[in-house]
Amino acid sequence: MADDSAARIVAALRLWVADAPAGTRLPSSRALVAEHGASPVTVQRAIRQLVGLGLVETRPGVGTFVSASGPSRPADYGWQTSALGPRTGRAALSSTQRASLPDAIGLHSGYPARELLPERLVRAALSRAARAETALTRSPVAGLPELQAWFAAQTAVGAPPGGAPAPRDVLVAAGSQSGLSSVFRALVGPGRPLLVESPTYWGAILAAEQVGVTLVPVPSGAHGPDPDEVDRAFALTGARAFYAQPTFANPAGTQWPAGTARAVLDVVRARGAFLVEDDWAHDLAIDAEPRPLVGQDADGHVVYLRSLTKSVSPALRVAAVVARGPARERVLADRAAETMYVSGVLQAAALDVVTQPGWAGHLRAMRRQLRDRRDLLVASVREHAPQLHVEHVPAGGLNLWARLPDGTDVEQLVREGEARGVLVAPGTEWFPAEPSGPYVRLNFAGEDPSRFPEAAALLGAALKAVV
Amino acid sequence: MADDSAARIVAALRLWVADAPAGTRLPSSRALVAEHGASPVTVQRAIRQLVGLGLVETRPGVGTFVSASGPSRPADYGWQTSALGPRTGRAALSSTQRASLPDAIGLHSGYPARELLPERLVRAALSRAARAETALTRSPVAGLPELQAWFAAQTAVGAPPGGAPAPRDVLVAAGSQSGLSSVFRALVGPGRPLLVESPTYWGAILAAEQVGVTLVPVPSGAHGPDPDEVDRAFALTGARAFYAQPTFANPAGTQWPAGTARAVLDVVRARGAFLVEDDWAHDLAIDAEPRPLVGQDADGHVVYLRSLTKSVSPALRVAAVVARGPARERVLADRAAETMYVSGVLQAAALDVVTQPGWAGHLRAMRRQLRDRRDLLVASVREHAPQLHVEHVPAGGLNLWARLPDGTDVEQLVREGEARGVLVAPGTEWFPAEPSGPYVRLNFAGEDPSRFPEAAALLGAALKAVV
Repeated sequence: MADDSAARIVAALRLWVADAPAGTRLPSSRALVAEHGASPVTVQRAIRQLVGLGLVETRPGVGTFVSASGPSRPADYGWQTSALGPRTGRAALSSTQRASLPDAIGLHSGYPARELLPERLVRAALSRAARAETALTRSPVAGLPELQAWFAAQTAVGAPPGGAPAPRDVLVAAGSQSGLSSVFRALVGPGRPLLVESPTYWGAILAAEQVGVTLVPVPSGAHGPDPDEVDRAFALTGARAFYAQPTFANPAGTQWPAGTARAVLDVVRARGAFLVEDDWAHDLAIDAEPRPLVGQDADGHVVYLRSLTKSVSPALRVAAVVARGPARERVLADRAAETMYVSGVLQAAALDVVTQPGWAGHLRAMRRQLRDRRDLLVASVREHAPQLHVEHVPAGGLNLWARLPDGTDVEQLVREGEARGVLVAPGTEWFPAEPSGPYVRLNFAGEDPSRFPEAAALLGAALKAVV
Repeated sequence: MADDSAARIVAALRLWVADAPAGTRLPSSRALVAEHGASPVTVQRAIRQLVGLGLVETRPGVGTFVSASGPSRPADYGWQTSALGPRTGRAALSSTQRASLPDAIGLHSGYPARELLPERLVRAALSRAARAETALTRSPVAGLPELQAWFAAQTAVGAPPGGAPAPRDVLVAAGSQSGLSSVFRALVGPGRPLLVESPTYWGAILAAEQVGVTLVPVPSGAHGPDPDEVDRAFALTGARAFYAQPTFANPAGTQWPAGTARAVLDVVRARGAFLVEDDWAHDLAIDAEPRPLVGQDADGHVVYLRSLTKSVSPALRVAAVVARGPARERVLADRAAETMYVSGVLQAAALDVVTQPGWAGHLRAMRRQLRDRRDLLVASVREHAPQLHVEHVPAGGLNLWARLPDGTDVEQLVREGEARGVLVAPGTEWFPAEPSGPYVRLNFAGEDPSRFPEAAALLGAALKAVV
């Protein structure tokens, strides 16, 4: 494609320009056409991009030259130290967002591999969105009405009459991180307590800490949290909200049994509280079906989040927050103040993908691939890194949650693994307080599965080096 | 287009379904093909959308039927009253976001009309983005490197050596509202003071109130704020930041004289403070050129925002926050916690538009249109609503800021106008505290200009009714 050629030429010329003194003349267009085997139009497009980037300047009739650049004295930011005051939140990015090193095996990321995505559907949907009215108009603050209706209909599957949210209860956000931030700000607020499972999703911990809510950890395992513990935590702290992932929880991939879900919902109702249900892995089922709790609740106790980012495309950042009653108004007001509205192009394209006839087939194919990948990584770990204990084979999601031998220094293991060429995520990030033990999270959806045995062997060797 | 036909059929059938009892059979596909003059494929697509929305159910071999719906008892949200506690921010949306009534003349919105947008460039850019790698990948948290470089190069125009930000100082946000929220959270914080011009952009007031910062108004007019007043406000409140729109300020469209800009920058430097420069109308110049202050500052005092939403397309929500030194790290950490990253599709498409050869011509054409529209609305108001006083003819931007006779009830005038068929925005929303007088804001960029004389006459009549 001409685009890719132009990008290639831009990349090559950027390297060239970086090594050249200001004022150096670029090779002629004709020379670049010959060197890169591209059309003159493509070469001109590449040069325009470099001009736009300020890296080169074109003097008509003369040629193209490397621009002057570089500061004359070092900047002085010292004054910012007192202007900014003490830092309250975290400064570092999550280790799951590290860039992969060349040739390293990446089990650290939280995203599925490119080949698991519905590429054809996504490209076709974006092409249609480019021609549609939404390419040039604003979306309503709450979202495109058709997409709101789709999300609402999805939550109605299997719900008793009256339990399903209405389309107006659906608020579209640009990804679930943005939705979580709004929910924590609007329904909990700074200094107020929020119950969370432990371990739980690091992104939710990050969003909650940024808002300044006080996290109250409740232990959760293969059978979800103990409803009596949840009740005690509500009673002790006066919290009015509980954030949880009942379906294929991140990190462990477990699902609350139906009885636990009912009992927790009863506790939440009795305490006059919200259950913030983060259904992040709805489309990532492997051995079990998702059973969202939101459809079981008619009185607005369940505030529900679902994202399409991981199953459709990371570039179509679209998620739904479902909230009813005054809670909806609070979240909507926060959305308006925080971002005003979400691009209608992304909303229209995401809706297009999930309403195509090919979508169901894509989900089935993805399920098979996730199962094969999960099983291969479990088998590889058991064979090549038997000291790593996978407590539960996940019924859905993208990850294994593996316990290290007691006393293992998790950060040291992660560094040893990295030195050997395998990246894993330290379990520490999933704990809202001190970790209950040493864990790592291994993503089975992102890396080429043929490298899983090697990855497990490298991890096994790294473990031997640190224990 | 097939898409539009399907949407038309969906719209028609939704009305039909709304009136039909559950279980009613839909007309056959053949009947729908005949009725709507569409292809069978298009009719099937429309029906699939209705199924996706939960409005109809298809029984294979039998037909398509209206779904059952409707709650059995009213929901009880009373418990939320105590769970949510008192409300802190505003609940209502801005009056600029009201939907236009049919046939009403809309001068209330903050956006340019569809015909002012570079439609061909936007559609072509989105089509290319649909085929590019960014359609299926994540963007880095800080943004696509090429887009960061473009924004950085833009701020370097006319800057002395060392003054221009580097590409890594640019953080891409999904619109400037989102950027403002991050800046106010990361650099000011709840309970801390922030100087703002008065009047100033309502969206900035909203974002600041949501964060919980304490707004300190500084009067600003045709010549910008008085630098001595700014200095006194810093001294009195201990504020370390000043939010301002030096270029074509919203609402009045005025530009700070160069001397005022230099003096304010000196005050900001001497006070060890940030100037948050919101360059919202950079691409909306009419009679003057934008002169961003960010390029005049090497030590990170100016935190700069620029959005492409209004000049490229409201659907390509892409903005830049430029921050240097520790401030950059603070804002980046907030962006990561708040939204993780911005869709690469939107970033790639926006960059594509602004690096096309047609972009400069589009900006020139838009400038001519804005000038004609502004002049026509000014003339219409002077002729048909002489009681409305336009204090300054704006040098850029999208709006007139008009003063009403002393003692006018602004809200009543807005209602009287609406009753007569003309929508305007009450000036009240642009004041961080009590308004210094009765104003309305009139957008000259959104409505069909041939209706400006009629709009002015209706406003004049509305004014007579309330004064």
